Amino acid sequence: MLPDPAVQKAGAATPYGDLGPVERMARRRPQVLIVGAGWGGLTLARRLRSVPVDVELIDRNNYRVFSPFVYQVAAGMLSPGDVAPPVRKLIRSVSNASFLKAEVTGIDAQNCRVLTDHGSLSYDYLVLAPGSVTNDLGNATVRERAYSLKTLPDALGIRNAVMDALERARWAEDPQQRSVLSTFVIVGGGPVGVEYAGAVIDLLRAVLPKDFRDAGHEAKVVLLEAGPRILPLFDEPLAASAARSLRKLGVEVRTGTALKAIDQDMVELADGSRIEAGTVIWAAGVKASPLGGTLGVPLTSQGRVPVTSTLRVKSLPNVFIIGDLAAHADLPMLARPAIEEGEYVAKAIHSMMLDREPEPFVYKDPGIMAIVGRGSGIAQIGPFRLRGFIGWLFWLTYHILILDTIRARFTALINWAALFLFREPPLRLDVSAKRRQAPD
Amino acid sequence: MLPDPAVQKAGAATPYGDLGPVERMARRRPQVLIVGAGWGGLTLARRLRSVPVDVELIDRNNYRVFSPFVYQVAAGMLSPGDVAPPVRKLIRSVSNASFLKAEVTGIDAQNCRVLTDHGSLSYDYLVLAPGSVTNDLGNATVRERAYSLKTLPDALGIRNAVMDALERARWAEDPQQRSVLSTFVIVGGGPVGVEYAGAVIDLLRAVLPKDFRDAGHEAKVVLLEAGPRILPLFDEPLAASAARSLRKLGVEVRTGTALKAIDQDMVELADGSRIEAGTVIWAAGVKASPLGGTLGVPLTSQGRVPVTSTLRVKSLPNVFIIGDLAAHADLPMLARPAIEEGEYVAKAIHSMMLDREPEPFVYKDPGIMAIVGRGSGIAQIGPFRLRGFIGWLFWLTYHILILDTIRARFTALINWAALFLFREPPLRLDVSAKRRQAPD
Repeated sequence: MLPDPAVQKAGAATPYGDLGPVERMARRRPQVLIVGAGWGGLTLARRLRSVPVDVELIDRNNYRVFSPFVYQVAAGMLSPGDVAPPVRKLIRSVSNASFLKAEVTGIDAQNCRVLTDHGSLSYDYLVLAPGSVTNDLGNATVRERAYSLKTLPDALGIRNAVMDALERARWAEDPQQRSVLSTFVIVGGGPVGVEYAGAVIDLLRAVLPKDFRDAGHEAKVVLLEAGPRILPLFDEPLAASAARSLRKLGVEVRTGTALKAIDQDMVELADGSRIEAGTVIWAAGVKASPLGGTLGVPLTSQGRVPVTSTLRVKSLPNVFIIGDLAAHADLPMLARPAIEEGEYVAKAIHSMMLDREPEPFVYKDPGIMAIVGRGSGIAQIGPFRLRGFIGWLFWLTYHILILDTIRARFTALINWAALFLFREPPLRLDVSAKRRQAPD
Repeated sequence: MLPDPAVQKAGAATPYGDLGPVERMARRRPQVLIVGAGWGGLTLARRLRSVPVDVELIDRNNYRVFSPFVYQVAAGMLSPGDVAPPVRKLIRSVSNASFLKAEVTGIDAQNCRVLTDHGSLSYDYLVLAPGSVTNDLGNATVRERAYSLKTLPDALGIRNAVMDALERARWAEDPQQRSVLSTFVIVGGGPVGVEYAGAVIDLLRAVLPKDFRDAGHEAKVVLLEAGPRILPLFDEPLAASAARSLRKLGVEVRTGTALKAIDQDMVELADGSRIEAGTVIWAAGVKASPLGGTLGVPLTSQGRVPVTSTLRVKSLPNVFIIGDLAAHADLPMLARPAIEEGEYVAKAIHSMMLDREPEPFVYKDPGIMAIVGRGSGIAQIGPFRLRGFIGWLFWLTYHILILDTIRARFTALINWAALFLFREPPLRLDVSAKRRQAPD
């Protein structure tokens, strides 16, 4: 068999791209294309190190976001560089893997090709791990007026917006306007909303009064949850303890309260009441990446792709789906299932190359945890339940250990220590990258 | 004398803003307005701590940029948060000073008022310390196509542009196009151009080949200087040693070479020759802030405002000019003159309040230094000349000591140590803040 010309082209970037076509043919190894360098995609790329395949990893960003820390960037506790190592660095030791920064626009499963904004690529095995996107639940006012809290640009945008609101409050002469500017509504009582609420209230209540001697004390944080309680993934007693912690910190926690619309300086609730607030942060849910729609198979209500017990698309035996896009046994859209699915698919591809049918995927649930403000956290690990300071220490230790680089561990530790000891989020800049020098 | 109503309004934000008009009148202290929270403005605000005045510091940004490190942000060596502490934190201990984030649009010197995009403010003493802006020398192609290297958004923009060029080079199939994308031209052989050239060549030559196994080795850095030699502020032997260091690192240093125009993927030189390059960084000069133009006095060719020996505008005895905007004894546009001028003006205002004429300002030149790539620097301090590793150590020690916060010192040291030991600039993200959630 002669190599497909497209593979040859793409091959110019593989470790033996400078070989001639005959030598290449002799060495022809299956091409595994991984779309998405998140928890699932990166785990898989690294696990394929010892499998005789060529791996091409594609992502629209050149960094991997350490998702549990994104809210800390939004709250000024960590820098983007601390939570997002470059993908190329993370796969540097994987000699059979390379990375392409590109946006995937579609999949031509008939011809085993992935279409991107930089051209198309062929594959022998395709693994889709594109993750999820913010779900605005079809509410146009959310899309237009709320700040979503999902990506790293989102987090920087929120940090800038909060700082900007406080600076504008400093100028406002009307006390009413000042109070609107100092009110922050967070929508969504899941882990992201809860963790951000706990972090931002600390920023507002403890730190900013030192900086804004006049306006800071008026700051108010409201956490809205449409369901009957926050943190539905956690046991009821743990979630209740988290709600108590948040209230003690000064967060106004309102459950059973759905948002209807966001207007200028105003949040309208489903029950007809209103909250005057200048800044709304949306953490009320995610949906699977729209990439699933290009496969031409029916999707679940969250936009997830139904998969077989071996995480493959039923009609496409060489296409795997992992992470948030995979609808498998109602697994939550969290890092842990994606990691285990990535580990599994490496073994499954190896089995298939040896003409063996892969064993079904089984999720081993190690538990869940969340941080609830400074010095307090909850964790639910098998039969164990941790809360308060012990829960916080556990969260911190676990996450320090799974950080990728020694430098990231050091800077995270220093920033957290500074925060714990001095209650001083170090990063309160309102700054964005400039694309080009602007005209005068 | 009854307090001016404008002062009363602005006074709502001073430490005793909640006092009634009679009590306020009794405590009426002169209002010092400082425009610009850079080296000069911040130094002055801090020195006025012990002078019986109320200080209002205005800047368009809520952070103070540690200018000697801006090029390190552009080269991925430090995070923005490491080089730009919040202004409010820096003046927190100055109980008679407060900060306003606003853009100054003009000065009404007749009525002693400063106009901003948030309304106007009155003053008894005005100190203009707005610094400088990029000078594109009237070249429209520079304005449109070059990346300026002056502000923090500039630095982040350059970091993103360099990363993006390398990612695009990874995709380019035409070797010619790949080489264009991997060529970076830096215009301007002053300290900023030289320091950035030394840092970026290290990033490109040592680090990226590990990440871009295929394209990185082609990267090329050209430093253009229109004058006969680089670093004209330094003694000739030191500047020559810096040029040798840069060439040893792999930078193509071209002196006596003026840029004529920048075209798509092409730099045209004054002698008619061309360099094919995808990214052009402009570090060829600054000019004083356009704010000087609103004073209605004649300016120098660099847009600076001529000042008396006491740093005041001749026709406006209560208006001081410090830093890059002040044309005083041909002082260079550097941090050090601004700092000394800030220290001086605090004393001058105190003298004037005691009805004494201030002594003239005298600049005590402590010397200049620059870093020239990894592990090499030059310094010119009085009769002493340092170069090479000793010059680098001296630069590092001095700058670590003048960093504002303990946390900034720690993270800078960790990042520099990581860079020196592992040749690994930690921050290679291509990321920008998102303003609002974008429409689907």
